[in-house]
Amino acid sequence: MENFNLFQVKLTGGFFAEQQKLNADVTLHSVYERFAETGRFKALKCKNEEPHAHIYWDSDVAKWIEAAAYLLSRKEDASIRARYEEAVCDIIANQCENGYFNSHFQVYEPENVFTRRHDHELYCAGHIFEAAVAASEYLHDDRLLAFSEKYVDYIYERFVVKQDTFFTTPGHEEIEIALLRLYTLTKKEKYKELAAFFLDMRGKTENAQEKKDVRFQSHLPVREQTTAVGHAVRALYLYTAMADMAQIEKDETLKNVVESLFEDIVNHKMYITGGVGADPLKEGFASPFDLPLHNAYCETCAAIAFAFFCDKLSLLSGDKKYADIFERVLYNGILAGISRSGDKFFYANPIEVYLPRIQRNAGRPHSFPAKRLQVFNTSCCPPNVCRFFERLPQYVWYSDVSNSTLVLSQFISCALHSEFVDADVVSDFPYSGKVRIKIHSHGQKILFKVRKPEWSDETFDNEKDGYLVYEQVFDGEELILDFKPTLKKVYANAQVAEAADKVAFTFGPLVLCAEGADNPLPLFSTRIGDIKDAKLTFRADAPTPFAAYLPARYRENENGLYAYTKTEKDCTLTLIPYFAWANRGENDMRIWFAEY
Amino acid sequence: MENFNLFQVKLTGGFFAEQQKLNADVTLHSVYERFAETGRFKALKCKNEEPHAHIYWDSDVAKWIEAAAYLLSRKEDASIRARYEEAVCDIIANQCENGYFNSHFQVYEPENVFTRRHDHELYCAGHIFEAAVAASEYLHDDRLLAFSEKYVDYIYERFVVKQDTFFTTPGHEEIEIALLRLYTLTKKEKYKELAAFFLDMRGKTENAQEKKDVRFQSHLPVREQTTAVGHAVRALYLYTAMADMAQIEKDETLKNVVESLFEDIVNHKMYITGGVGADPLKEGFASPFDLPLHNAYCETCAAIAFAFFCDKLSLLSGDKKYADIFERVLYNGILAGISRSGDKFFYANPIEVYLPRIQRNAGRPHSFPAKRLQVFNTSCCPPNVCRFFERLPQYVWYSDVSNSTLVLSQFISCALHSEFVDADVVSDFPYSGKVRIKIHSHGQKILFKVRKPEWSDETFDNEKDGYLVYEQVFDGEELILDFKPTLKKVYANAQVAEAADKVAFTFGPLVLCAEGADNPLPLFSTRIGDIKDAKLTFRADAPTPFAAYLPARYRENENGLYAYTKTEKDCTLTLIPYFAWANRGENDMRIWFAEY
Repeated sequence: MENFNLFQVKLTGGFFAEQQKLNADVTLHSVYERFAETGRFKALKCKNEEPHAHIYWDSDVAKWIEAAAYLLSRKEDASIRARYEEAVCDIIANQCENGYFNSHFQVYEPENVFTRRHDHELYCAGHIFEAAVAASEYLHDDRLLAFSEKYVDYIYERFVVKQDTFFTTPGHEEIEIALLRLYTLTKKEKYKELAAFFLDMRGKTENAQEKKDVRFQSHLPVREQTTAVGHAVRALYLYTAMADMAQIEKDETLKNVVESLFEDIVNHKMYITGGVGADPLKEGFASPFDLPLHNAYCETCAAIAFAFFCDKLSLLSGDKKYADIFERVLYNGILAGISRSGDKFFYANPIEVYLPRIQRNAGRPHSFPAKRLQVFNTSCCPPNVCRFFERLPQYVWYSDVSNSTLVLSQFISCALHSEFVDADVVSDFPYSGKVRIKIHSHGQKILFKVRKPEWSDETFDNEKDGYLVYEQVFDGEELILDFKPTLKKVYANAQVAEAADKVAFTFGPLVLCAEGADNPLPLFSTRIGDIKDAKLTFRADAPTPFAAYLPARYRENENGLYAYTKTEKDCTLTLIPYFAWANRGENDMRIWFAEY
Repeated sequence: MENFNLFQVKLTGGFFAEQQKLNADVTLHSVYERFAETGRFKALKCKNEEPHAHIYWDSDVAKWIEAAAYLLSRKEDASIRARYEEAVCDIIANQCENGYFNSHFQVYEPENVFTRRHDHELYCAGHIFEAAVAASEYLHDDRLLAFSEKYVDYIYERFVVKQDTFFTTPGHEEIEIALLRLYTLTKKEKYKELAAFFLDMRGKTENAQEKKDVRFQSHLPVREQTTAVGHAVRALYLYTAMADMAQIEKDETLKNVVESLFEDIVNHKMYITGGVGADPLKEGFASPFDLPLHNAYCETCAAIAFAFFCDKLSLLSGDKKYADIFERVLYNGILAGISRSGDKFFYANPIEVYLPRIQRNAGRPHSFPAKRLQVFNTSCCPPNVCRFFERLPQYVWYSDVSNSTLVLSQFISCALHSEFVDADVVSDFPYSGKVRIKIHSHGQKILFKVRKPEWSDETFDNEKDGYLVYEQVFDGEELILDFKPTLKKVYANAQVAEAADKVAFTFGPLVLCAEGADNPLPLFSTRIGDIKDAKLTFRADAPTPFAAYLPARYRENENGLYAYTKTEKDCTLTLIPYFAWANRGENDMRIWFAEY
């Protein structure tokens, strides 16, 4: 399967068009300004000035440049354009004679270039290469592409030809994705060869920095890595590149491996939100079913990387389950990462908040706040959010033109224009399941498949393998579908310690949660009753556009710690979409509840 | 009120006589051997040999010496006697000319004596002083007492007279307890004065090592410390000394303060087991109601210190609530600290165990195993358990001879012989509530009060303020009481995040738990039903002499992480006493359960 590009698919209104508007009006500006204040953009000038560039700052600005390129291709913005221009010029002007670029290493410790596996040089390079692809493809600006070609030549020379670097494969994967994007854009074999080198050498060297390194995925050759381990963002960038390579090379072994990795994650290591990474200390995957509610990690970047992986798997296999998980991650794990105001972000996304615990752990290593911030020391997530929402239209449709096949994967209002088909989608997702689809197949009979969301209880006559299937010439007929989301109970696997005896609630793709702001009662004493009379409301006013009201019981704050009796009182518990929480100050928050 | 001493009260059979037998036959020997192997006893010889003495090793051996003194006074044991003798001789032989003794500092860094507040010198001194009191009182061996007098003179000279030390009050409290024990034994004012100095200077100096140090209780003057904060063992040793001082000096302000500290702990900061210290990183108290189940701290020493504090409060006020908490701590928090085999110990006592979590955190800072070990690097708990079970008879009775008052506080089979009264108690605690009490009051009319346990639903005609009250001459009459323990549900305060929507179970003084060894099913999926038909069994065979069988539902390990339906199956959940858990390998363990 193939994606359409961002010239072909444009959002036309509704939920994610609003998010893209916020991205253009607020998010990109705010992220730029925080990055400028902290010296990240100035660092590109490679002058030895305070503050000194951190080893991974280039990746932060590169993601912003990539996002700016997408944005400028759909909407001119003089301020974004000027900032984009200055940043690109700075990077190009300061590329080393030999092709190398890193605003930390070339300025502060050139003698240590390519000596420390975990110091993000190839990760930074990869993000600049991704920005280069975006600029070339969407702005026809090939300056970073030329920069990238020269830089890749240098990396290839050092890692593949001379092999004189202190490590063989990147400690923070990402460049593998970027190299395959460069290859897909330019078809130059060298990019694919270098990506293949980094993938294939992983787990095969005796190098002390990488041998059997489970945390950073070099414990085994990639074709033997069938369970997801270690740092979640790194792992998922790696798996994304592996899936892409499997597609490009029609590598069945690699295809089996990435499918197995996906199954391991969704069956053992994923929060209900699609968040991944249960272990804050490793920022990584824990063992199967070990998904603690308090101080979960769930980095926003890990959710985004997981969405990238799901996209590549959709392209590779066409199975609808990958798009189901994409939808879960999109509406919950990713969307919760940014404030409704568009300018604040979670690095780690809490799955449950008990404020005294958060306060006790404040400032301690591997603990995270219960509020979004504008910028972090490690500020990878904000610009990742920026570029993700710009790239989102790419994930709505898939096509296989050679087999006249078109797939509607996500229910996001958009217009598609291509030689193959033109189409319009109008969707009320996520607050209703109504979708109207109009297609022109230019006189050709096509196989059109619409993903039926895993949460829909509707049955359709033309359902096959989770898709509604149409095989016809489309001449602008309107398909009107309704997947009818309902309030549903969700149960976790019996082995999930903190959730196996509880219930969570979803509405369509939305995971719901209860927040202190709506529920001024001892939230952790509440138990949920029969939800058949639960009420739902749809409110236009942000930040909680949707709410579910559930019959529940709670207990007052009694005196004393332990008692032989309890008095529960009836109440109505208000649930809101998880993505909308923490927009009204710091609050207790829960997803999982006991039932009476 | 007053305690009787260990000559006056001796255990005569039953549950804790068995524990004392284990202490004599196994525990003291095992602890000695582990300490000898690790160099702790050799270090007393103060030769500069490997392994170098740790700054707090003296306290470990001193607690063992104290325990040995009690043991030898009730039961000769040639091996214990020889080991006791050698250790005492080594300490005395190596006391410095000026009175100082510390097997680390005097050998390895004499220049740093009394420079670092947190390096345990006064804590070690205190434990030797307690050993000295035990040896003098119970073995009529005054060698350590003479050592202590000389050492106290030196401490007094440096801290009180010259004030040339780098800190004013101990970073790890304990010496305050010891000094008051020395005072009580010898009536020498200097001991009390030094204890008063350490108590009164706390929170009052500008010294950088102690000013506003919340973690180590010098944030405020002690008479303003009304909430329990910081390191739990240190805090409770301090509070114990404060309560003792309040009694000795009839200090009403201090009495109010320690009563307030007790209320803060039992109403806000105590696990159902009587364990305290919810914060593993600080080994200390967390904020009110913040009592996480996973990776709780609950050091065995903190439970023992809490029992000491309860004893002092009982002496101070006579209110029965302190003995209720003593009982809770004794049967749960303390008793769980030692294996049924008598030779293995918990340092931190888990409140819930989910093995994958334990395995994930193994070896990480501030994480603890789900199994008892024979010895730790910081091995304060094992010898503390040794001395505690030897001292236990002291806590059974209280008396106020001047008011002809006798109180039976704990239901432990024992014989009491004193000029005031003779008495015998035969108790089946904790597996039944039956108690037979025979008293001779030597012709005198006495006020005899028997604590009614807080868990007893029985009513008695002569009940007053939680005591059964008898006012008469006792001439060997037998009182036969039955407090009839039943299986009871316990609910946590609505603000306790992980327990407020759950239930726990007790039987008399015993907190119950479910362990994987008895329950080979997904333990975290279980929910408890109506317990009115629950069955109880009493089995003579260790390690689980008691079990409760509860109707419950569980779920099989399904495939996949999340599902819209669940299938619960009926089962019988086996609960055992919390103190008996973890004697059959490493297991999942739970105290708190959801109810259906």
